[in-house]
Amino acid sequence: MGRTYDTVSFLSDYGLVDEFVGVVKSVIRSTAPHATVIDLTHDLAAHDVRAGALALVRTVQYVASGVVLAIVDPGVGTDRRAVAIEVAGGEGVFVGPDNGLLASAVAMTGGAERAVQLTNADYQLPAPGPTFAGRDVFAPAAAHLCNGVDLMELGDPVEPMTLRPGILPLSETTPEGEVKGEVLWVDRYGNVQLNIDPDDIERLGERIRVTYGEQRGRAAVRAETYGALPAGQLGLVVDSYGLVSICFDQRSAADELKLRPGDAVSLQAPS
Amino acid sequence: MGRTYDTVSFLSDYGLVDEFVGVVKSVIRSTAPHATVIDLTHDLAAHDVRAGALALVRTVQYVASGVVLAIVDPGVGTDRRAVAIEVAGGEGVFVGPDNGLLASAVAMTGGAERAVQLTNADYQLPAPGPTFAGRDVFAPAAAHLCNGVDLMELGDPVEPMTLRPGILPLSETTPEGEVKGEVLWVDRYGNVQLNIDPDDIERLGERIRVTYGEQRGRAAVRAETYGALPAGQLGLVVDSYGLVSICFDQRSAADELKLRPGDAVSLQAPS
Amino acid sequence: MGRTYDTVSFLSDYGLVDEFVGVVKSVIRSTAPHATVIDLTHDLAAHDVRAGALALVRTVQYVASGVVLAIVDPGVGTDRRAVAIEVAGGEGVFVGPDNGLLASAVAMTGGAERAVQLTNADYQLPAPGPTFAGRDVFAPAAAHLCNGVDLMELGDPVEPMTLRPGILPLSETTPEGEVKGEVLWVDRYGNVQLNIDPDDIERLGERIRVTYGEQRGRAAVRAETYGALPAGQLGLVVDSYGLVSICFDQRSAADELKLRPGDAVSLQAPS
Repeated sequence: MGRTYDTVSFLSDYGLVDEFVGVVKSVIRSTAPHATVIDLTHDLAAHDVRAGALALVRTVQYVASGVVLAIVDPGVGTDRRAVAIEVAGGEGVFVGPDNGLLASAVAMTGGAERAVQLTNADYQLPAPGPTFAGRDVFAPAAAHLCNGVDLMELGDPVEPMTLRPGILPLSETTPEGEVKGEVLWVDRYGNVQLNIDPDDIERLGERIRVTYGEQRGRAAVRAETYGALPAGQLGLVVDSYGLVSICFDQRSAADELKLRPGDAVSLQAPS
Repeated sequence: MGRTYDTVSFLSDYGLVDEFVGVVKSVIRSTAPHATVIDLTHDLAAHDVRAGALALVRTVQYVASGVVLAIVDPGVGTDRRAVAIEVAGGEGVFVGPDNGLLASAVAMTGGAERAVQLTNADYQLPAPGPTFAGRDVFAPAAAHLCNGVDLMELGDPVEPMTLRPGILPLSETTPEGEVKGEVLWVDRYGNVQLNIDPDDIERLGERIRVTYGEQRGRAAVRAETYGALPAGQLGLVVDSYGLVSICFDQRSAADELKLRPGDAVSLQAPS
Repeated sequence: MGRTYDTVSFLSDYGLVDEFVGVVKSVIRSTAPHATVIDLTHDLAAHDVRAGALALVRTVQYVASGVVLAIVDPGVGTDRRAVAIEVAGGEGVFVGPDNGLLASAVAMTGGAERAVQLTNADYQLPAPGPTFAGRDVFAPAAAHLCNGVDLMELGDPVEPMTLRPGILPLSETTPEGEVKGEVLWVDRYGNVQLNIDPDDIERLGERIRVTYGEQRGRAAVRAETYGALPAGQLGLVVDSYGLVSICFDQRSAADELKLRPGDAVSLQAPS
């Protein structure tokens, strides 16, 4: 027996309407009763691997040491690999599908040190059908890791280099000083997070033109926080993850500008 | 004092917008601080006893031993009985209204062994009105059971034979080999679970005609898993509960076919 | 080190789609692993301080002793104060913004005894931007309180008299006996809670005219419980919080009458 864990941080696209999340937790509870499950989110859009990968990146530095169980798995039951990936000298283990969901978060924690494909049926539940790997494969793996089962017991070793990479979109700055990026995330309040670092727009000044879609652009002002914006004034705030975010005070910028994750946005000095 | 329990598995139609679920958990926490509550789901359609009963049936074999608290209770405050039902030699106790919600899950765990109507006010909270039995009757009962209070202390004995039965709809096969069933469940991904066992359609072959509503029927193919289906091809997959499910790969079959729980569906060989 | 706590009861308008709630819980888990978080609700309407204050009032008498973490914080990052407020001889501590959200619940538990502004950076997380105080300020404060850090360590003392008061709307009775109130809350089932005490309508009898908006009014009957109402009959029930609620049996009164929180409603004897 190796290192044990007390916490499973759990993210999925299962939603909260069906009992999928509850069943996964029940399996963990039955197998590793000492472990506490912390729900990160389960309302990612169905099958949206990119959104799941970005949510993991935003949360990973805050999760308690232990197991991170992440499931957005449109290829469930196909030949995509189910994996467990150890990081940071065993302080954390990621469990989930090898479809790019885990890669960026794994990289942020220092990269994969050991990895395994979850092929050992001794650590799985027998299943009438192959479509609920969360219950039958991933939850048992997470629970057995909590109990001190060594990673390599869970199946066949995987060479970390062969794990599927994640793709985080990069922004670029044109020679004219225009910063071209895209929308990473729209939060509950309608704030629009861009893949743009505040340093990249430093020289654009306090008033910035935001261009998107077919629009000619709108004027935005930089602000410390949402509440510092005058009513109806579009703003650019450094959000809690250190990225530039398009926002209003107490109003949805995403609704007003009709922006969604993946949309192209550029920032430049006013013309 | 009798057997104690550490886990309350909790299902309801309370939703997560109001604080009903939080208050029930607070009452359990105050009374039995050692117990952990595992949420199965709380977003069942309001008052939908059938959907709750089916969700319990799908989850019951996975829940940790302990108390199962299930509340879908349109008759709250009327003369429907509030009950606790012991199963499996005391390994589990179901707590909820005696309106058919619990019956099928109780049967799956071997049937009711002892039962009680929750009439003992010593194990209830005083309430200004009778409409929140989850808080005032069911949560205290669950918590006191966790603390080792014997089932029979909670109120008047109930003869298990008098508990309200559940109704699980059965499929039928016509002499011509047509299998007539109905939709049990539409999950988050739009997969449509039928009350049809894979054995019943074995002789229909790999291509099967799915008839529903006023439609002339659509051709579906059998597949191992969602991801094995060509894009846009309707499929029949044995789902994770061992039942036949109508599906597409990464697309909602329920939306496309406009199917909802309770709708009639028949499967037959192509004509 | 002072008194420690085992429970954090957590209410917010963060929603469950983003990972905000999960990150707050992760921070608490990392800092105070022994503490259990009980979710009260997180689906309050974004920025709706009034709805949050009312939900806290409804739940506060049921929460376990310990920390109550409440976050509806449209002024995050501005000069509104982040505070912790001790009540009931230290049996409970409220943590949240000083914007009226906490005031009525604090009053219900006997009033503020000690209070502090959360200004001590030693008990906060460093943050790239000031917009996620739940993660960076409030969650660390709650966790350190659980660990036994004394309230006054968390920052500058606040004179309880200077805390922002809450505003609970009062009903009034006209000389003619009409009781004028407003909608406090519409629950998941569409029941419409009024700020009217059953005593105030005692003399109006069993049949009562409900007037709202531009309507001439509708006849309602008093009933013990929802299920006692004939189908389609509008009712007035004393709800589980002891207030008068407008309802139907298994149908949404709010949808039918188009009532929302804050709407004016009057009750009077039939003309």
